[in-house]
Amino acid sequence: MNEFIFLLDLLGIIAFAASGALVAGKHNMDLFGGLVLAFVTGIGGGTMRDAILGVPVFWLAQPHYLWACLAGFLIVYGAVWKFQSAPKATINFLDAVGLGVFTVLGAQKTLALGHNEAVAIIMGMLTGCGGGMIRDVLANQVPMVLSRKRLYATASLAGGLAFVVLASLSQSIAMAIGFLIVLIIRIGALFRDWRLPFFPVLK
Amino acid sequence: MNEFIFLLDLLGIIAFAASGALVAGKHNMDLFGGLVLAFVTGIGGGTMRDAILGVPVFWLAQPHYLWACLAGFLIVYGAVWKFQSAPKATINFLDAVGLGVFTVLGAQKTLALGHNEAVAIIMGMLTGCGGGMIRDVLANQVPMVLSRKRLYATASLAGGLAFVVLASLSQSIAMAIGFLIVLIIRIGALFRDWRLPFFPVLK
Amino acid sequence: MNEFIFLLDLLGIIAFAASGALVAGKHNMDLFGGLVLAFVTGIGGGTMRDAILGVPVFWLAQPHYLWACLAGFLIVYGAVWKFQSAPKATINFLDAVGLGVFTVLGAQKTLALGHNEAVAIIMGMLTGCGGGMIRDVLANQVPMVLSRKRLYATASLAGGLAFVVLASLSQSIAMAIGFLIVLIIRIGALFRDWRLPFFPVLK
Repeated sequence: MNEFIFLLDLLGIIAFAASGALVAGKHNMDLFGGLVLAFVTGIGGGTMRDAILGVPVFWLAQPHYLWACLAGFLIVYGAVWKFQSAPKATINFLDAVGLGVFTVLGAQKTLALGHNEAVAIIMGMLTGCGGGMIRDVLANQVPMVLSRKRLYATASLAGGLAFVVLASLSQSIAMAIGFLIVLIIRIGALFRDWRLPFFPVLK
Repeated sequence: MNEFIFLLDLLGIIAFAASGALVAGKHNMDLFGGLVLAFVTGIGGGTMRDAILGVPVFWLAQPHYLWACLAGFLIVYGAVWKFQSAPKATINFLDAVGLGVFTVLGAQKTLALGHNEAVAIIMGMLTGCGGGMIRDVLANQVPMVLSRKRLYATASLAGGLAFVVLASLSQSIAMAIGFLIVLIIRIGALFRDWRLPFFPVLK
Repeated sequence: MNEFIFLLDLLGIIAFAASGALVAGKHNMDLFGGLVLAFVTGIGGGTMRDAILGVPVFWLAQPHYLWACLAGFLIVYGAVWKFQSAPKATINFLDAVGLGVFTVLGAQKTLALGHNEAVAIIMGMLTGCGGGMIRDVLANQVPMVLSRKRLYATASLAGGLAFVVLASLSQSIAMAIGFLIVLIIRIGALFRDWRLPFFPVLK
């Protein structure tokens, strides 16, 4: 079980860090600006989660999380160097993987600390959406979670809800299903144009 | 006394959450984007306050705060659905109510924890201005607290100062007066164009 | 030793607070908007550091840090009032001093708390870059740390690395050298156009 969580965690961090590095590339930042954005995106959501839950921040005692951020950065940097371009969907796909992983991990950690289900779902959304929110705010663009036509918070909410409902049966199955729900909703939103009603436009 | 604080708290959260939902409407976000902005605005300032003070974050153990955010969102959503528009002043008025409530509650909680008056005034400003700052940064606009012609931080400072000075007499009267001072200054700034000297323009 | 840290700390806070006030002037904010930006820039990085490290936030018990923010603000305000303009390089220079001071102080505090060197370097970068990041995000501009042609994170990383390597010999010499490395790299970047390879541009 713990190995499962550990591997998921690394996967999510690498995916988010890679998305941060790609956003840096899109905005033509220098190398270390890209590195900063990769780290902030990779560990930002979990850092906010732990600070709010009042527990030790996860990467302080475990340096391998920092190496995972570096790995995500280097993978992107190498790929960009070789191909000189990145398909437009890459950022969104990496972001969807990170969103799914951190939604279920955030909810799982919150439940494990003894908080109730509503808090677990909120903390799952915060962990999942937080890193990408910081990334987008730093790059001076409206965060994906708030942009229209994206089913971003919706995906995270649905995945967190599924995890919380199923968690009493089997944590690892609940995490896998929660993750897949987030991923499928996001991919449907991106490639099939699934959407929610907009908020009525105000003038 | 505690009921008084409790009711004020709910009022502030509902007002701030409603202002977040309205900003989402103005930027034409989807439904869940609006929900996210409502929650972040409603509980953002108090979350920052508690994280900095090193005390348990207020909404973790008390889910009714989360319901208050939902209520603020639903009220706005229903009203917007019905009237298809919102008077321009509504966001500013709701924001002023939230600013007043959280300024005095932030200062009150900080004093109750044994910190000195200067820290209480600063934490009142942070609690009052914090949620709105996060809301505006996420919506990619300069926070109201920093925009010119608004007497925003000024209002919060004046209300916090009044509360701290009067708190030794009667907490509830001090809170009511502090709240009213914030509200009056903000409304004067918005509708009567009260203002401070600008910072000299630099080139 | 403690006096040395204390003086450095005040210097860094005054420099950062002054840079915040100047950014407020550049964006033509009102007086209290400028004051808010001065405080947030002056104590923002250290506040994030302490919240993440799980230790009491440094300015809660020691009000002189708040007075240092006020001093930075007043110095800028007086100078701007007198000269009606500020050389373009002033913000960058003040920011470089703050970056150097907080990089070494952040790394020093983290080491002193028993964390390992990698964490100390990251926390040095966070403390150094954090206040300026919040300042720039609030003023709705891309943070300096992410903009191209600036060697910003690079300078902080180099200074933090030097401090961590030399800290076992003499803390005060290590801090002085770390600070000078940050300052020299930033000044070289600003006035001599030193730079890193950019991230390849993506379309």
